[in-house]
Amino acid sequence: MAASKCVRLNGALSRQLLDSVDCVLFDCDGVIWRGDQAIPGAPEVINSLKKHGKQVFFVTNNSTKTRQMYADKLGKLGFDAAADEVFGTAYCSAQYLKNVCKLDGKVYLIGSKAMKQELEEVGIQPVGVGPDLISGVQIDWANVPLDQEVQAVLVGFDEHFSYMKLNRALQYLCDPDCQFVGTNTDTRLPLEGGKAVPGTGCLLRAVETAAQRQAQVVGKPSNFMFECVASQFNLKPQRCLMVGDRLDTDIMLGSNCGLKTLLTLTGVSTVAEAEANQKSECPQKQRMVPDYYIESIADILPALQA
Amino acid sequence: MAASKCVRLNGALSRQLLDSVDCVLFDCDGVIWRGDQAIPGAPEVINSLKKHGKQVFFVTNNSTKTRQMYADKLGKLGFDAAADEVFGTAYCSAQYLKNVCKLDGKVYLIGSKAMKQELEEVGIQPVGVGPDLISGVQIDWANVPLDQEVQAVLVGFDEHFSYMKLNRALQYLCDPDCQFVGTNTDTRLPLEGGKAVPGTGCLLRAVETAAQRQAQVVGKPSNFMFECVASQFNLKPQRCLMVGDRLDTDIMLGSNCGLKTLLTLTGVSTVAEAEANQKSECPQKQRMVPDYYIESIADILPALQA
Repeated sequence: MAASKCVRLNGALSRQLLDSVDCVLFDCDGVIWRGDQAIPGAPEVINSLKKHGKQVFFVTNNSTKTRQMYADKLGKLGFDAAADEVFGTAYCSAQYLKNVCKLDGKVYLIGSKAMKQELEEVGIQPVGVGPDLISGVQIDWANVPLDQEVQAVLVGFDEHFSYMKLNRALQYLCDPDCQFVGTNTDTRLPLEGGKAVPGTGCLLRAVETAAQRQAQVVGKPSNFMFECVASQFNLKPQRCLMVGDRLDTDIMLGSNCGLKTLLTLTGVSTVAEAEANQKSECPQKQRMVPDYYIESIADILPALQA
Repeated sequence: MAASKCVRLNGALSRQLLDSVDCVLFDCDGVIWRGDQAIPGAPEVINSLKKHGKQVFFVTNNSTKTRQMYADKLGKLGFDAAADEVFGTAYCSAQYLKNVCKLDGKVYLIGSKAMKQELEEVGIQPVGVGPDLISGVQIDWANVPLDQEVQAVLVGFDEHFSYMKLNRALQYLCDPDCQFVGTNTDTRLPLEGGKAVPGTGCLLRAVETAAQRQAQVVGKPSNFMFECVASQFNLKPQRCLMVGDRLDTDIMLGSNCGLKTLLTLTGVSTVAEAEANQKSECPQKQRMVPDYYIESIADILPALQA
């Protein structure tokens, strides 16, 4: 008999689930905070999990902050957290380029200052951060000066994204030996009140279309995001729980890597979407069905305090 | 017996083909010119076709020029051509918004000054042309002031493309009543010497990804491009010949609209690609097999002079 999935957590089940894991991985936005506000009860849940001896990690596709910037924000919102418990795509991309690609050249970076810092931290020199405006005509753009030491293009969130950046990425990627990495494919960054702004996925799609190549993606649901944590802390997947608000990134990552999965309804995805995936015959959609769901992670607090 | 396709034109066949049509539609870049140089012999071919009483049209996906700018360039390179024989996507998009969408509001335009002029020519007011740089933080971007009279987003080639333009397009397109139109999906603009810069397709893909909607595309291979010419000049498709250098735009348009098709090898596509399509079982690829091919359109000159 297949184990039942997409089950609503209640008190007894929560205790059972928590007893079955040593480690809990939390997505951040929509799970433990929204914007600059902690989800009510979330700090207590995280801090209590740690007091009960669980390992806790923060796993986010957002590429705009360094580990230290996340640790500072977590601390300010009342979470007990250290920088080495944070795995954002700025940090993970640097790890990927250094440890998987074994890069020994520079990186052309479409991304933030935080990404620049994380790359420098592992000894990789990024070029390209900040505005890059257009001048001249087409033939000037095609002959734009390139840094001969660049051996990879990395695309993350960049509010200074421009036609010239797109063009420069294309010129680097015309060399088939140039590595091509993206932090994540999230199409929108959801904000309070149902608003949203374009996410990294839009920028990455533009560069992929120009380059006629697909980037290697580091963020969720790519396995690398979990492997990065697991290898540093020697984690056993079956003893880990992934908690997230998105079926296509968080729950998919958990399914892909053999983790237990918990959907929280304080963010993007709904139970109806999870149930629709469950009814589908498509194996891809089946991987977007969580083992459990819960209104808010605050709802597991009683199980921790019992 | 199916008619044989992908046949190399020779003298006798050229005469036969020209006798069977009243009208010849030419793509421009890679067909009658490359950059700022006419393909040798191309002006003589065009001018001679017209002297023989053929109607000639210039049909281009390039959105950076008005009809008049094209007519001026054609004249300077020795082509006998008038502005109303030119159908570029700047002009055709304006026609589409006015006659198909029946737009009576403004357009948020990611595009060139030429597109702005063509829109104004049909009485549509565009907003957004020129640089649009970022300031503030995410919540400011989501609440960027919008023009309440905008009823469509049009995406063409725009060297000032920026994150803020992408964001503004997203905010307009969150209204499901806002029309969404793209000039074309060409991913690269090829330049002399094998170089290329990113094409409109990259910008359109970014906006589509953010908006989670697909644009209505006006340019080749969309039928509208031919319908726009055919309706104004009362053309019979089976009496028209489409001449182009790209299988996926020019030849596909011809096949889709029931025109005769001729691939010229002075531009992007090769005979090998056409033959590979011919061998494929895929109906989509079969539509990218030309009836005829030729090294250069100059090769039909003897047939016209005979």
